[in-house]
Amino acid sequence: MASKSGKTSVLIVGGGALGSVFGWRLQLGGCLVSVVCRSNYEIVKNNGFQIESGKFGNGVFSPDHVFSSFNAAIAESNFYYDYIMVCTKTLPNISNPANVLMGSPINENSAIVLIQNGIDIEQYFHEAFPTNILISAIAYIDTKQTESGVIVHGEAISLQYGVFIPDQTETRHSTSSVPTNNSILETLEKHLIAGNSGCKILDNVSRDRWLKLVWNSSLNPIAVLSGGSNTKEMLDNPVICNLIVSTMMETISIGEAVCKMPLSPTIASSNIPETLLDSVRKRVKPVYPSMLQDYLNKRPMEHEVILHNAIKRADCVGVNAPILKTLYALIIGAEKKYLN
Amino acid sequence: MASKSGKTSVLIVGGGALGSVFGWRLQLGGCLVSVVCRSNYEIVKNNGFQIESGKFGNGVFSPDHVFSSFNAAIAESNFYYDYIMVCTKTLPNISNPANVLMGSPINENSAIVLIQNGIDIEQYFHEAFPTNILISAIAYIDTKQTESGVIVHGEAISLQYGVFIPDQTETRHSTSSVPTNNSILETLEKHLIAGNSGCKILDNVSRDRWLKLVWNSSLNPIAVLSGGSNTKEMLDNPVICNLIVSTMMETISIGEAVCKMPLSPTIASSNIPETLLDSVRKRVKPVYPSMLQDYLNKRPMEHEVILHNAIKRADCVGVNAPILKTLYALIIGAEKKYLN
Repeated sequence: MASKSGKTSVLIVGGGALGSVFGWRLQLGGCLVSVVCRSNYEIVKNNGFQIESGKFGNGVFSPDHVFSSFNAAIAESNFYYDYIMVCTKTLPNISNPANVLMGSPINENSAIVLIQNGIDIEQYFHEAFPTNILISAIAYIDTKQTESGVIVHGEAISLQYGVFIPDQTETRHSTSSVPTNNSILETLEKHLIAGNSGCKILDNVSRDRWLKLVWNSSLNPIAVLSGGSNTKEMLDNPVICNLIVSTMMETISIGEAVCKMPLSPTIASSNIPETLLDSVRKRVKPVYPSMLQDYLNKRPMEHEVILHNAIKRADCVGVNAPILKTLYALIIGAEKKYLN
Repeated sequence: MASKSGKTSVLIVGGGALGSVFGWRLQLGGCLVSVVCRSNYEIVKNNGFQIESGKFGNGVFSPDHVFSSFNAAIAESNFYYDYIMVCTKTLPNISNPANVLMGSPINENSAIVLIQNGIDIEQYFHEAFPTNILISAIAYIDTKQTESGVIVHGEAISLQYGVFIPDQTETRHSTSSVPTNNSILETLEKHLIAGNSGCKILDNVSRDRWLKLVWNSSLNPIAVLSGGSNTKEMLDNPVICNLIVSTMMETISIGEAVCKMPLSPTIASSNIPETLLDSVRKRVKPVYPSMLQDYLNKRPMEHEVILHNAIKRADCVGVNAPILKTLYALIIGAEKKYLN
């Protein structure tokens, strides 16, 4: 079994708001794109994804192949996937996140690309697939599935990624001992750019994950716990605004102790919260953070990788995390109430 | 105008779950009891309060007089009240709590008894009525109004109180310079005991307020913010249980810095949380803390006196309060959502 000659093959696992838009851009960027869909399988198989994009205009993304399961994606394909992109939610409290790739063998040449929120999300996949190249990726994109197979995308789209190096909190890009990694990262970059997506190869993806967590660990749980408030409702309230800033500063302290360096190469740590909040204030429409969307739809929330894994790291490096611990406990309680 | 000869006269302002039960016991204990009712005025005027009490059995409390306003209670009475007991919620963010006694002159001989939750609740009344004796009281009672004029009371009933001394965080009972205070405190004690209520005169009511706040500042907001959980649901969850203990310890730290002494004369500070939680676990029925009841009924919550005043004190004495600050901001946000 070999990769299909002439085209880079991509399998998107999780054909939701995130996976569909990146799949669309990669197909337009020259890739052969297959998608594993769950609830929207029939609709996408028959009609593709209907995408309304502020940046790209309206379009239809018809994947080269649509599968109803990962097993089918492996069994029914006569070539291997250069990139297996995992775009599912990370819910280790419910099941091992790596289970989405279980049940069928993965080719040793397939790079696994994790496009997921949170901290220390790579551990689950590294344990399950220790010999595959693991790429840790951060998506900067505003997109949601408004009904089955219908995706609304805004203006932003960028994928930032690097190779995950186990047993370190760092990742690397250019290392002489693994020359093969560069071409894997750069081939993906080439297709993303060809598909008009933003793209950045990171030397230290862990550091950038922590920087993104500064947003996620604060706005997400506070949106839920303040009665289900969007960003406009939160930022209009100075008491909640202060709490967001304090939560961001606590997350920055933990991340800097873990990464042993400032989280941003350009922004002073104490200015990160206001810089992030300014970017939120500039948006025309209020943002509904992912946890808030899950809360409003009574779905499980990603509190383990967005809060709990950060708290565990804080305990390891000896940094106090009273706010994150408070938010985590309350989120656990609130989720239990509505999932019951 | 003089107090009615032969009987101690009491005016209960706030004829709800709390005021009705204490009014009932004081009437049985020999007092002439008048009550100011709002929403339940017509029902109470016609039928009295129907009280189902675990401790006392079922009974009807027909106040000697029922008024629809404080002004009516002053204007329509030909005697002054020895005790004006304020049993309303304390919501300084909505209006001055002392407004419940505004609009008609209060006799200089009337003692104002505040039976209210929270910290620094006395300031509002001391400013408005600087020359009246102010008694700060803490109620240990489980009672609720299940429908208009119908009260369900459990087993517990005790009123603990002392004279509020302005510009100090202390109160006093026995002080030679104010011999008159003792008789005011002891007359009330006599009637409470005659009415079969528990009763304790406190030398330092501020300290006891802080001790009660340890319960209120933790269980109240956490019950609301964990999706509306009662005590059983909270204590069944070890993550939430830990948060409750941490919140209690934070409150104890603030209270001890303010009072300049341990909050309990008998329990080591570090054992207070488990002692309180044990008392909750022993209850047959789960407890719905007052803020949770307000939240479930979409009424304003007492976050200012239960959380904000404690936070202000923490800032004054230089004690960190990250958990209380987090809970307060979230409660503010959640309340705003449902009051809108």
